[in-house]
Parts: sequence; C-alpha cells; structure tokens
Amino acid sequence: MTQALSEQLLALATDKRLTVTTAESCTGGMVAAAITDIAGSSTIFERGFVTYSNQAKHDMLGVRTETLDAFGAVSEEVAREMAEGARSAANADIAVAISGIAGPGGSEFKPEGRVCFGWSSIQGTGSETIEFGAIGRDKVRQASTKHALQKLLNAATLL
Amino acid sequence: MTQALSEQLLALATDKRLTVTTAESCTGGMVAAAITDIAGSSTIFERGFVTYSNQAKHDMLGVRTETLDAFGAVSEEVAREMAEGARSAANADIAVAISGIAGPGGSEFKPEGRVCFGWSSIQGTGSETIEFGAIGRDKVRQASTKHALQKLLNAATLL
Repeated sequence: MTQALSEQLLALATDKRLTVTTAESCTGGMVAAAITDIAGSSTIFERGFVTYSNQAKHDMLGVRTETLDAFGAVSEEVAREMAEGARSAANADIAVAISGIAGPGGSEFKPEGRVCFGWSSIQGTGSETIEFGAIGRDKVRQASTKHALQKLLNAATLL
Repeated sequence: MTQALSEQLLALATDKRLTVTTAESCTGGMVAAAITDIAGSSTIFERGFVTYSNQAKHDMLGVRTETLDAFGAVSEEVAREMAEGARSAANADIAVAISGIAGPGGSEFKPEGRVCFGWSSIQGTGSETIEFGAIGRDKVRQASTKHALQKLLNAATLL
C-alpha cells in the first residue's frame, strides 16, 4: 500500500539529492519502515525517531515541555516541533512528524482517529490535523503512514 | 505474523513491569512498529531508534567509531554496542538491536541475508548472527523482526 509512494519518494529525493527523516508517535516506526522497505533507501534516509512518550519527544526532538503541557502530544504545535527537532537532529532536508490517537479509545479529551502531522524543510514548517475517525487502530496507523509519506513527497517536490 | 509475539511481549513485560526499546538498522523501524501495533504498548515502550547509517549509530547510540571501522556495521560487536547504547539512552530494562544485510546484494564483503542481533538487560549483553540467506529483502526484514521480538521475549522471561 505504501510501496509505490516510498518508491516515488526515493526516486525524487535521490534525483534532487535530498535527505529525509521521520519523527513518529502513533505510527511507531511504520513510516521509517516504509521508506527503508525500498532497496537503496540509505541514499535518502539516515535515521529516524520513534518518540512514543512525551519524555522521548522532549529528549530526542527537543519538543518543549511547555508546548506538551499547553497543547498535549496530539496537537499541531507538538507535531511542528517534532518535525523541526527531527530535521535538526538528523541534519536532514525534510522531516515529517506524526502524533495521533490510533485508538481504541480517545485520550487527552481528543477523539480516536485524530492525527496531527508536521513537516519541516528549508522552506518552512507546516502542519495539519486529519480526523480519520474510529476506523480501528490498524487502519488509522496505515492511513497515517501513507499520509506522512505523501507529505514528504510534497515537500520534496517543492524543494 | 508478528502480532502474537508482540502481544505475548506486552503481556509479559506489563506483568513484570519491564520496559523495552529498539535499535534498528536493516529492519528500519519494523520492530518498533510491531510492538506499537498492540494497544497498550505505551506501558512497555517509550522510544525507539532507527539508525540506518554508521553516523546515526554513533550519534544516537554511542556505537564507537573504532568498532564500526574494525568490524563493520553488520557485526555482533556493533549489534551489542547498539543494544547497550539504546538501553542506556532509553533508560529501558531490555533493548534489542538489529543490523544486517537485507539485500538485494551483499556488502562489506558479507553475504545478503546475514543479520546480527544484540540484546542487553541488567543480566548482561548477548549477540548472535543469523544467515537468512538470499530469500529477498522483504523476507529478511520480516524474519529479522520476528527474531528480534523473540529476543525481547526471551530476555523478559529471564528477568
């Protein structure tokens, strides 16, 4: 499902000599796994961060405790800081970040299926929230992985 | 394929109040993804490291440049340092590390399908090499993911 996107990303980023990195919460490594599924991905991908806890987001990506406290982990504010922190820590051209509620059940008074995405490149930082709804943990994670790859691809297209 | 193992790991580690972490090279996030596939995994898993390049292994896990130079990334020596570094950086009870040649093609004068595993807990550090053979990139990565989960489960059983 993600293979075609990963192949496109690898081809485009290789062509443009761009590197990418990942900062994942609810997808838990799936985006990095999708990228590295393609032979030759080491040309564009050097490291990735799986930051499941708030502490990990702070320690590994420099997400501010104030931001986590004020907005919660599942917020565009945190997703943006995750992306910026990952891009900086990996010294990569493009970073994507994913933080959401895969379920089952909501949390932080936020609904199941809400996923926040952040992305960062020299062109700036962006974010969006998608409400996938209560479609099930697996489907939320898979849809989020696909969406994150699309965000990397979009960012690479613009560079 | 990995779901039953991840469920066993979550149940056992939760019961024993153990935390786990992952340091992944050739599996590129698949082990972290498998662990976080199970709802409730945040009880035992807080962060994971995808260290595809040598530089990432050094920066994120403290693998020594001397070890990388002397033995190459796909070696038990490096897998052991990856596991020890991940356990320390994540402050986790158990760490597993995976470094191998998923293919296609060998490298470092090492054959396709060779995967080195390292694990670390308060009981010590262990390592082994499995020759999966040239069964294809996907199958090497999937078999390695399963094997890594089994190593975490074994280590949790012993604690």
